[in-house]
Amino acid sequence: MGKIGTDDRWKIVPPIIEDLKKKAKSLGLWNLFLPKYYPEDPGLTNLEYATLCEIMGRSHLAPEATNCSAPDTGNMEVLAKYGTEAQKRQWLTPLLNGTIRSAFAMTEPNVASSDATNICTTIRRSGSNFIINGRKWWISGAGDPRCKVYLVMGKSDPGHKEKHKQQSVVIVPADTPGVTVVRPMHVFGYDDAPHGHCEILFQDVKVPVENIVLGEGRGFEVVQGRLGPGRIHHCMRSIGLAERALEYHILRATDSSRRTFGKLLAQHGTVAQSIAESRIEIDQARLLVLRAAASIDSVGPKEAMNEIAIAKVVVPTVVCRVIDRAIQVHGAGGVGQDLPLAYMYSGMRTLRIADGKKMFALHDARHLA
Amino acid sequence: MGKIGTDDRWKIVPPIIEDLKKKAKSLGLWNLFLPKYYPEDPGLTNLEYATLCEIMGRSHLAPEATNCSAPDTGNMEVLAKYGTEAQKRQWLTPLLNGTIRSAFAMTEPNVASSDATNICTTIRRSGSNFIINGRKWWISGAGDPRCKVYLVMGKSDPGHKEKHKQQSVVIVPADTPGVTVVRPMHVFGYDDAPHGHCEILFQDVKVPVENIVLGEGRGFEVVQGRLGPGRIHHCMRSIGLAERALEYHILRATDSSRRTFGKLLAQHGTVAQSIAESRIEIDQARLLVLRAAASIDSVGPKEAMNEIAIAKVVVPTVVCRVIDRAIQVHGAGGVGQDLPLAYMYSGMRTLRIADGKKMFALHDARHLA
Amino acid sequence: MGKIGTDDRWKIVPPIIEDLKKKAKSLGLWNLFLPKYYPEDPGLTNLEYATLCEIMGRSHLAPEATNCSAPDTGNMEVLAKYGTEAQKRQWLTPLLNGTIRSAFAMTEPNVASSDATNICTTIRRSGSNFIINGRKWWISGAGDPRCKVYLVMGKSDPGHKEKHKQQSVVIVPADTPGVTVVRPMHVFGYDDAPHGHCEILFQDVKVPVENIVLGEGRGFEVVQGRLGPGRIHHCMRSIGLAERALEYHILRATDSSRRTFGKLLAQHGTVAQSIAESRIEIDQARLLVLRAAASIDSVGPKEAMNEIAIAKVVVPTVVCRVIDRAIQVHGAGGVGQDLPLAYMYSGMRTLRIADGKKMFALHDARHLA
Amino acid sequence: MGKIGTDDRWKIVPPIIEDLKKKAKSLGLWNLFLPKYYPEDPGLTNLEYATLCEIMGRSHLAPEATNCSAPDTGNMEVLAKYGTEAQKRQWLTPLLNGTIRSAFAMTEPNVASSDATNICTTIRRSGSNFIINGRKWWISGAGDPRCKVYLVMGKSDPGHKEKHKQQSVVIVPADTPGVTVVRPMHVFGYDDAPHGHCEILFQDVKVPVENIVLGEGRGFEVVQGRLGPGRIHHCMRSIGLAERALEYHILRATDSSRRTFGKLLAQHGTVAQSIAESRIEIDQARLLVLRAAASIDSVGPKEAMNEIAIAKVVVPTVVCRVIDRAIQVHGAGGVGQDLPLAYMYSGMRTLRIADGKKMFALHDARHLA
Repeated sequence: MGKIGTDDRWKIVPPIIEDLKKKAKSLGLWNLFLPKYYPEDPGLTNLEYATLCEIMGRSHLAPEATNCSAPDTGNMEVLAKYGTEAQKRQWLTPLLNGTIRSAFAMTEPNVASSDATNICTTIRRSGSNFIINGRKWWISGAGDPRCKVYLVMGKSDPGHKEKHKQQSVVIVPADTPGVTVVRPMHVFGYDDAPHGHCEILFQDVKVPVENIVLGEGRGFEVVQGRLGPGRIHHCMRSIGLAERALEYHILRATDSSRRTFGKLLAQHGTVAQSIAESRIEIDQARLLVLRAAASIDSVGPKEAMNEIAIAKVVVPTVVCRVIDRAIQVHGAGGVGQDLPLAYMYSGMRTLRIADGKKMFALHDARHLA
Repeated sequence: MGKIGTDDRWKIVPPIIEDLKKKAKSLGLWNLFLPKYYPEDPGLTNLEYATLCEIMGRSHLAPEATNCSAPDTGNMEVLAKYGTEAQKRQWLTPLLNGTIRSAFAMTEPNVASSDATNICTTIRRSGSNFIINGRKWWISGAGDPRCKVYLVMGKSDPGHKEKHKQQSVVIVPADTPGVTVVRPMHVFGYDDAPHGHCEILFQDVKVPVENIVLGEGRGFEVVQGRLGPGRIHHCMRSIGLAERALEYHILRATDSSRRTFGKLLAQHGTVAQSIAESRIEIDQARLLVLRAAASIDSVGPKEAMNEIAIAKVVVPTVVCRVIDRAIQVHGAGGVGQDLPLAYMYSGMRTLRIADGKKMFALHDARHLA
Repeated sequence: MGKIGTDDRWKIVPPIIEDLKKKAKSLGLWNLFLPKYYPEDPGLTNLEYATLCEIMGRSHLAPEATNCSAPDTGNMEVLAKYGTEAQKRQWLTPLLNGTIRSAFAMTEPNVASSDATNICTTIRRSGSNFIINGRKWWISGAGDPRCKVYLVMGKSDPGHKEKHKQQSVVIVPADTPGVTVVRPMHVFGYDDAPHGHCEILFQDVKVPVENIVLGEGRGFEVVQGRLGPGRIHHCMRSIGLAERALEYHILRATDSSRRTFGKLLAQHGTVAQSIAESRIEIDQARLLVLRAAASIDSVGPKEAMNEIAIAKVVVPTVVCRVIDRAIQVHGAGGVGQDLPLAYMYSGMRTLRIADGKKMFALHDARHLA
Repeated sequence: MGKIGTDDRWKIVPPIIEDLKKKAKSLGLWNLFLPKYYPEDPGLTNLEYATLCEIMGRSHLAPEATNCSAPDTGNMEVLAKYGTEAQKRQWLTPLLNGTIRSAFAMTEPNVASSDATNICTTIRRSGSNFIINGRKWWISGAGDPRCKVYLVMGKSDPGHKEKHKQQSVVIVPADTPGVTVVRPMHVFGYDDAPHGHCEILFQDVKVPVENIVLGEGRGFEVVQGRLGPGRIHHCMRSIGLAERALEYHILRATDSSRRTFGKLLAQHGTVAQSIAESRIEIDQARLLVLRAAASIDSVGPKEAMNEIAIAKVVVPTVVCRVIDRAIQVHGAGGVGQDLPLAYMYSGMRTLRIADGKKMFALHDARHLA
């Protein structure tokens, strides 16, 4: 892997993380996300997992501490479902044990990413190898010194007449020659070190053909499988984050040392109303997430497509508003570094971009309404 | 009862209503609303009743056809809970049988009605009678020729030091001398004949002291009891009404005979989005209503106060928006008499007024958030 | 003209109207809308007229009292611009004098009206006559007993290869055999008698070829010319109407006899905020209208297309919100017949439909942004 | 002045700034903000200055290049209006020449800042000196190595019975012993080096009594004077910034290399609508700003209070929305460092906090509506 800076922030993972991982593991709070088909399956339904996710969503450390953090969870699901025995041994086992981390390299800077058929990284077969060339960015987790492997999506058969069979996904070890982590992308000024959302350059990167996942031309299947129930893990966690933002909001509004014009903030009608609005919007969003989780449990992710899409469209929008109100009530302090609110907002705003395109799915589903 | 017009629309109830009532009764679809404490209790939980209410909400005839329509349901609950045996025999029995109808007279034209302690109709004791004087308006159902009785709220002890013990509720037969139904109030341009939302004048109206409900000074208790679970029956029905509005919306947007600029309406992105927004908002509103109903079932209306208030605040607002979008997609036809949309809107807009004050309750509950 | 009912409300125009017309005429407040090219031109710029329109918009009588009311103003402009001397003599002169009224018959029930090329009323040439067949609805003013003439748009050359040259506009006297005013359309329960927004049936209606306006196949030109500056007269008036709604809003909120929980309504933060929001939105809307008027004055309606479209999109939406807030603060009274608010809303909501399609124009203009 | 870090970003001002300043000065584009009462007054009305500000607002360098940047402009106005000859000589002259910069220290971390009477920094007289103790934060510009002076607001007479006469403003040279610049506050993830929004600690800071501005107990007068017309400079610049965001928005939406589902982004109805919405909202906001500027010119800042408050409430909210839409259309790139959009958002979001409290002023002005 290439360097992304000489700054220690990118080299050292806060020690508390590894401590918490040990603790969580010893308590059995480990790989809770794992779906039923895998042997180590902890046996949680999506609905059950959703309630745990809400708790984990309150802290930015909790998901990793329990080995339930993105993008690893999706990658583990892919490897568990579609991986060969060799792939599982080499990559899935250490991921399940939390000894390495991983990334999923799909988004590209030069194409409209809301239509994934636009991807233009090439995966060219050459003898017993694939040669990969292309530029990816916003590859979350690629900055972490423990990130040892990427799942890379690219075009293996750009001339295939079926647009959704031109793509493949291959496994690329992070230390393969030709891989350069160019830089971390910033999110509202935050670089999210050491996790990072990186730009990565692939120049004549060579991997053996055994590294293909599921098979050539089946990249879209892999992506769909990856996004199955995992699709709403972010939503589940976002509810917890929203609750925390509302707690800050209420704490400030009822802080007896902060009176304006003789009243507590919460005694001003408009502030009281802003609390009620956030309370209502969080409750609504949670119900949508739980409904989607229950639907996945009962009819599977394909049939639950509408419920999933609705949750994904609503949650980031609502949580952005909830955090925004919490920021406002704090005055200047709300956007600063002494509170986590602005950082929360930056993450949720990004999630809103990722899920914006889901509206399209809903449009097509209008005849089902 | 006084006259409110010579127009036949006020004298004749559409015969289909009585036919449907017979049919519903024979099918056992009768008094479904009735809460558990009453002998004829059909045994439905609030959650179960909510799903039936959604179906009934699709038609403006269904609630009355099943003897589940306001304001009678609330009045029956009051008489069942607080009525004397004589009161039950005289008024509750015919109401349960659907042979008469009733009204609840609370709102007054000259006071701020969102604070019920402002009510100024007087209920003065005089020997073995109460003498009632005052003016009420927006008394729903008072226009119906079958409306035989009013429950009237007024001040029986205006000097009582506890503001919430100044009021009483008394039973007033509609044909008592001194009662004049002045006029129907209009909602937008609709007078809602023969049901009507009437202005009623009480001039030296005399009823025996036996007509008191629950006891003198206990008017607020009666009102609270009346509004228990019944509080969200309107919300439940509104979901069904919203679904119907959305059906009109989709029907129009996918009508193959209405192309603009070469496309179906639904193929314009903004129209497709308007459908998705209504779909999402209805789903959210329904989940809030079902949650409130389930909460009433499990912890009772008092403990479910927050869930009830949230449903009441959200539902009319959301349903108004849903109908408004359906109107817009229909062009001028949307506001006219060939579709029920404008009439639906007028009713839902009124409900939004009635529930606007619920926000206050939420504000006070902010510390529980 | 056919009958639309035996009700006197449709036969008698309130006498105050004719009184006010005389008074306005004697004061020189007459035909103020008239654009510059006409001899009797009162010499007002659009910007100047806009400020007068705002005043007139406060009353539903003022526009007609000054002979500045729709749809006559647009029809007079058409006749002044495109009419033959004979057409002017017969129809324009009495319209300018306020002795007759007129209607413009374009919208049809069975086609998507936001794309006017869909219109399907036929205007077939037969010797020295045109034969007209079709059904129109929402023809404003057609209920008025003084309405003596319609300008009717239809297809005269349905096979013409240029879609915008298939239409013509012809003058049809209201008493021509074959014309039936079927019924008034309702707007949220209001029938707007005696003005009316009527459905009209044209069955083999015969008019001489001299009744063509501008020429065969030039219907779209006529419509465009009709909508020139007149396009924003409604917007101008709507600002005045909004100011009046806000006055009701403030009056109620500061009514010292209506205290809730010990405070004036306006002392509740959320009510105060609702006033401020309406104040701000009206001010913004007015500025957009004045800007559009000034643009028409300086560069003409074609070059001012964007400014006009923006005003038309914003104004009805904003004014609907302003009225809606005023309704809310009045409680049930807000939707009833004792205040003009619900009626105001119904009219403004309809205007929002008419102008909804203007958004399309803006979309196409995006590259100019 | 204390250190805020060893990072070069805080020590070196980009050389381009000083180059641009020379160039602007030579072109006469210097101190354009200066109000009329000052000798060097460039003679611009507020309305004229507003149009220049919009242009300057497009670049984050332009305001400083023309010596028109906050917080110096406000400080220069204060010194020009209220300063003694000695104060002017020492501080105003170099500020007008652009050789030093300044800060205004008002906001404090531990009090509700929307009510300035809460401020608790002390300014205690001791012989011929004032002794200052307190903690300030969000002091914009205090990080700049050229920032040589602070205007500090504090309580000089905490026992004064008139709450608005307890405060004074004193001039504190940045290198006075006892002054420590503790740290830069972050805005989202940006520290805005070298400008900085700093936390500053004042510990027994001693300045001669001659450093008082206007007089003891007149702090509020100083603040009011400082905020006169300057109040809307930010608003004026924000319009230019919004236009720039919309340009990015349109550029992306019409980028022919970014097609999704076979269409340009701008050909999707919802994207086209988002452009139209931003176009409309910017136009509205600009008109409000120009109106406020024109009002200040004609009736003075006091009489223009309502117009000013409306502009201040609307502009940051609108511009936040405009930038937010531009971000969304860019996908992940919208929040990253290759485009200025996220940084723009962070600044505008902060401005929205600063102006949020202006709504209170509007509320109180409701009876004037």
